Amino acid sequence: MELVSETRCFDGRQQQYQHQSSTLNCNMQFSVYLPPAAEHKPVPAVYFLSGLTCTDQNFATKAGAQRVAANLGLALIIPDTSPRGDDVADADGEYDLGCGAGFYLNATQQPWRQHYQMYDYIVSELPQLVEQHLPLNDRRAIAGHSMGGHGALVIGLRNPARYLSCSAFSPISNPSNCPWGEKAFSAYLGDDKAAWKQYDSCELLREFGQTLPLRVDQGLADNFLDQQLKPEVLKQTLSDVGGDGKVHLHEGYDHSYYFIASFIEEQLRFHARYLQQ
Amino acid sequence: MELVSETRCFDGRQQQYQHQSSTLNCNMQFSVYLPPAAEHKPVPAVYFLSGLTCTDQNFATKAGAQRVAANLGLALIIPDTSPRGDDVADADGEYDLGCGAGFYLNATQQPWRQHYQMYDYIVSELPQLVEQHLPLNDRRAIAGHSMGGHGALVIGLRNPARYLSCSAFSPISNPSNCPWGEKAFSAYLGDDKAAWKQYDSCELLREFGQTLPLRVDQGLADNFLDQQLKPEVLKQTLSDVGGDGKVHLHEGYDHSYYFIASFIEEQLRFHARYLQQ
Repeated sequence: MELVSETRCFDGRQQQYQHQSSTLNCNMQFSVYLPPAAEHKPVPAVYFLSGLTCTDQNFATKAGAQRVAANLGLALIIPDTSPRGDDVADADGEYDLGCGAGFYLNATQQPWRQHYQMYDYIVSELPQLVEQHLPLNDRRAIAGHSMGGHGALVIGLRNPARYLSCSAFSPISNPSNCPWGEKAFSAYLGDDKAAWKQYDSCELLREFGQTLPLRVDQGLADNFLDQQLKPEVLKQTLSDVGGDGKVHLHEGYDHSYYFIASFIEEQLRFHARYLQQ
Repeated sequence: MELVSETRCFDGRQQQYQHQSSTLNCNMQFSVYLPPAAEHKPVPAVYFLSGLTCTDQNFATKAGAQRVAANLGLALIIPDTSPRGDDVADADGEYDLGCGAGFYLNATQQPWRQHYQMYDYIVSELPQLVEQHLPLNDRRAIAGHSMGGHGALVIGLRNPARYLSCSAFSPISNPSNCPWGEKAFSAYLGDDKAAWKQYDSCELLREFGQTLPLRVDQGLADNFLDQQLKPEVLKQTLSDVGGDGKVHLHEGYDHSYYFIASFIEEQLRFHARYLQQ
């Protein structure tokens, strides 16, 4: 992996890297924040998965997370949202399929399956890479926003041995039953809905239960609330399976980074409880 | 003035407005943050002037200032950096002249003088407008970054009756003697350098002294340090005129919003000392 840029931020290091991904078969960029504590010892990491149309830059520049991460001694690992490059399949003019919309799954269908293997990239290749080259220990948490909230819930619930805690802002909670999810899953996974279940947090909760500590924050003035995000389905499912994970509903907040910025401290403090033990 | 958008942020209101400016002869947008305290009583305001190429959005989305402003009960008023619109003169393809580069002065030369009256807009029209329509009292501070740091210093030093304190990140301290300033001042003000002095913070300090409380933060890994920003000239001038304003130099920090985010809390707390008295 090659350092693209580095700048000081809250006495730590805000970095961007690029590397050739063998999982995605393309060149990828990602961002990293290393807190001051990482100068002296390996630190735990929170992976943050971003939403539709985002790159590794949105969360890095808009969430105000570095202040809290510096304080708590946590690294932030911020991947891109899909494979990228001239030979990567894309859906021309569509923001919710193709580049910027990888949905954190392993595609099985053409023309997507050669590059769109974001699940394996996030779960395996990226942690292995950064833990080899950066001052990180093996304590990980996973978080995300919207499409990345879906990704964080799915990846966390399926890999409780790899992540100590899981959180999401405004996640696509039940992608099998909303327009964004149906469109993406049909394209990437095909029409057999049995294959969709492994990428649907509500289905995973029903199958495995709440496998790790979990927190969700959702704004009630979010434009996508009822049609795409469905926090009430997630809340009901958590209750049905006896999970103690909380879905915090916030009056007046929308789907933007102003919402994330307002509650990122609470989410990172939630993760720190498990990461610092 | 017309509300373009509003979203909740740290329990306050992040807003964007547009209005027809009679000073600039064009339609303008600006952003506002109202802290929770403004629901109950008029609050003081910090005006933040942004740098070259910016709009009202950069500081609003990247500085992490709302958290601190909410805490301290301060409003943030974030103007655009120049007049805008199809009939506003521009310098094609140049980032440091024309749109996005108003330099917070009143242009006297063609083709600029019809619209480029940012000094009067910031000092008079905008405060009058927002204080009439928003829950603001008449206690104001002014701050800015780079070109906006120059603007804040100039506007603050010339108007100590209107602003209680003044601060800047990485300001263009001595624009009469650096490439950015020489290019802009020649175009907007003409070649007679006597007319430049009223827009040069070091010249103003020599003429009037330090007329109000002042704080500057400057990163030492800033690419523009020696050629454009010249903090040492500002520091020397402050010392020569017996000012108590501090120029804080920060090892390893660059010109970016990561630097602003790292120290915005200290700058807003500096202003709160004067605004809340």
